[in-house]
Amino acid sequence: MPEFRQNLATKDWVILAPERGKRPSDYAKEKKPRPPQPVYDEECPFCIGNEDKTLAPTYAWPSKDDWKVRVVPNKFAALDPNLSTTRTQAGLFLAAKGFGIAEVVIEHPEHNRNISTMDLTQVGEMLKACRERQREISRNPKINLVQIFRNHGPGAGTSLAHPHSQIIATPIVPPHIRYPMERAVHYYDNHGKCVFCEMVNEELSQSERVIIESENFAAFSPYAARSPYECRIYPKKHQPSFVLIGEEEVFELASVLRDLLTRMRTALGDPDYNYIIRSSPVGDEDTRYLHWYMVIIPKISIPAGFEIGTGIYINTVAPEDAARHLRETVVDV
Amino acid sequence: MPEFRQNLATKDWVILAPERGKRPSDYAKEKKPRPPQPVYDEECPFCIGNEDKTLAPTYAWPSKDDWKVRVVPNKFAALDPNLSTTRTQAGLFLAAKGFGIAEVVIEHPEHNRNISTMDLTQVGEMLKACRERQREISRNPKINLVQIFRNHGPGAGTSLAHPHSQIIATPIVPPHIRYPMERAVHYYDNHGKCVFCEMVNEELSQSERVIIESENFAAFSPYAARSPYECRIYPKKHQPSFVLIGEEEVFELASVLRDLLTRMRTALGDPDYNYIIRSSPVGDEDTRYLHWYMVIIPKISIPAGFEIGTGIYINTVAPEDAARHLRETVVDV
Repeated sequence: MPEFRQNLATKDWVILAPERGKRPSDYAKEKKPRPPQPVYDEECPFCIGNEDKTLAPTYAWPSKDDWKVRVVPNKFAALDPNLSTTRTQAGLFLAAKGFGIAEVVIEHPEHNRNISTMDLTQVGEMLKACRERQREISRNPKINLVQIFRNHGPGAGTSLAHPHSQIIATPIVPPHIRYPMERAVHYYDNHGKCVFCEMVNEELSQSERVIIESENFAAFSPYAARSPYECRIYPKKHQPSFVLIGEEEVFELASVLRDLLTRMRTALGDPDYNYIIRSSPVGDEDTRYLHWYMVIIPKISIPAGFEIGTGIYINTVAPEDAARHLRETVVDV
Repeated sequence: MPEFRQNLATKDWVILAPERGKRPSDYAKEKKPRPPQPVYDEECPFCIGNEDKTLAPTYAWPSKDDWKVRVVPNKFAALDPNLSTTRTQAGLFLAAKGFGIAEVVIEHPEHNRNISTMDLTQVGEMLKACRERQREISRNPKINLVQIFRNHGPGAGTSLAHPHSQIIATPIVPPHIRYPMERAVHYYDNHGKCVFCEMVNEELSQSERVIIESENFAAFSPYAARSPYECRIYPKKHQPSFVLIGEEEVFELASVLRDLLTRMRTALGDPDYNYIIRSSPVGDEDTRYLHWYMVIIPKISIPAGFEIGTGIYINTVAPEDAARHLRETVVDV
């Protein structure tokens, strides 16, 4: 029986419709095999030894000359750090120069790694690199939003196979971010509590959608998951921005993230996915009503006309079933 | 040089970044050939002669026994017309029973047609069927939103090749619809004008993004197009809901739509696409601040982590260039 479910924080609705997964199809859903990758690719700008193919790094660990994690400006950036933030009118329409900062986090020296095949120190240092760059970029007075994300596989929009995340920082905070912020303020004013803290506590208390719980983090497929196997990792304590994550916490997060991604990889056959670190805008790091989190979205379903038109997503796998499947998946990490 | 552009109505931002289209890739962008389809497929529930494979039609033209356009309830619907609209709490979380109406508009008796290979009467009658069903479904007091959409090709989320559109009607008006409504009210209160009427007039006056203009309709790739070759068709006069389209207008729209889709098909090689008719919620058909339109989105780019995280879309093709390309494409319709 289908059901509407509402996201407590954003008030977005989804339709859970497991029966719809059984409809007939004229199109074979063959999984396009991803081409196997070598340890080293001489064409790859991110491989160790090819450092001259990138711009000068903005961060490296443990050192620039002997790096294991390396952050570089994106050579094919969608935004340009040398432009101004001037806004102009084109008749009735508003434009702004394309100022922004775009960097690539090279997560490992080897070409054919993924997060499941990295050791914990590596994953932790990669997340730390993201945090350090978010901290540093946030000091730029022209930047208002720093978005960290990872596209895994061509179906998730990546163009290069070498393991990497991306950072894009903009002078603009768009409606997509502002609307949930307004909702969160209303919730705080009505209830005196951060709506995300409330959501995490409720998920932990209902427990059936929880996949991993550690001292400081909870990983679950949320009540109003928009697509099959959508998962989120939240800090259990109130923490508005990813820049605030502590030295030990970042390695604890690495462990939860690697565990979760390895479960997904095993259970779903290395799916393409996007993950995103949603964090408060710059200047809102201390607010009482926002809360950072990671959302991991395997590319299993295609948002079609109904989703694009209404923003109501039809999810054919109940998050309770997805969570049980991932919990019961045996992994060796 | 990249540029931010703002949608006048929704205040959403896009990044125009034509240079970004040139980045290197490890993945060949081979176009998956769509399997050729026969005129008649005995397995297809929508083919003429297979009427017993569907539920009883809710509409047919010219008649149920000798139909050329046929509307049937969706057998694999995401929502169920026999449920209630009761809302319930699951702890802190809100749910509602999955009440809703889902229908399929079978656009042609033959299996291997598309809008470009239908005559104008057929396209007009197909759009009229959509209008008639939207009118009828809107009379249901439990329905608040009627979404008409078309998914063309497996990359756009369709499962059946037979030409069809879909209608999904819900008791819920989601934030994705409400937020732009609120913006439109503010614009009306500030300026005394429908923001969509203003946008259409501005596009016609700037003219470089206009592809087709007829007496009552304008087709253009909008100033803040989110993806390559996104196009929209607006009624030039204020008209909040698609249910209000007149008898002659519906055939004029058919002509503009078929012309536009044929140009896309020729210029871009039969791309997968979604189109959506955005129309006012039920009960808001006479409002002075809303305006229906069609949006056509060829599936050329993949929204990745940045787009999902921020709602800011990176578009690598300027709408001025897309419009010129489509204007200059020679078609014989």
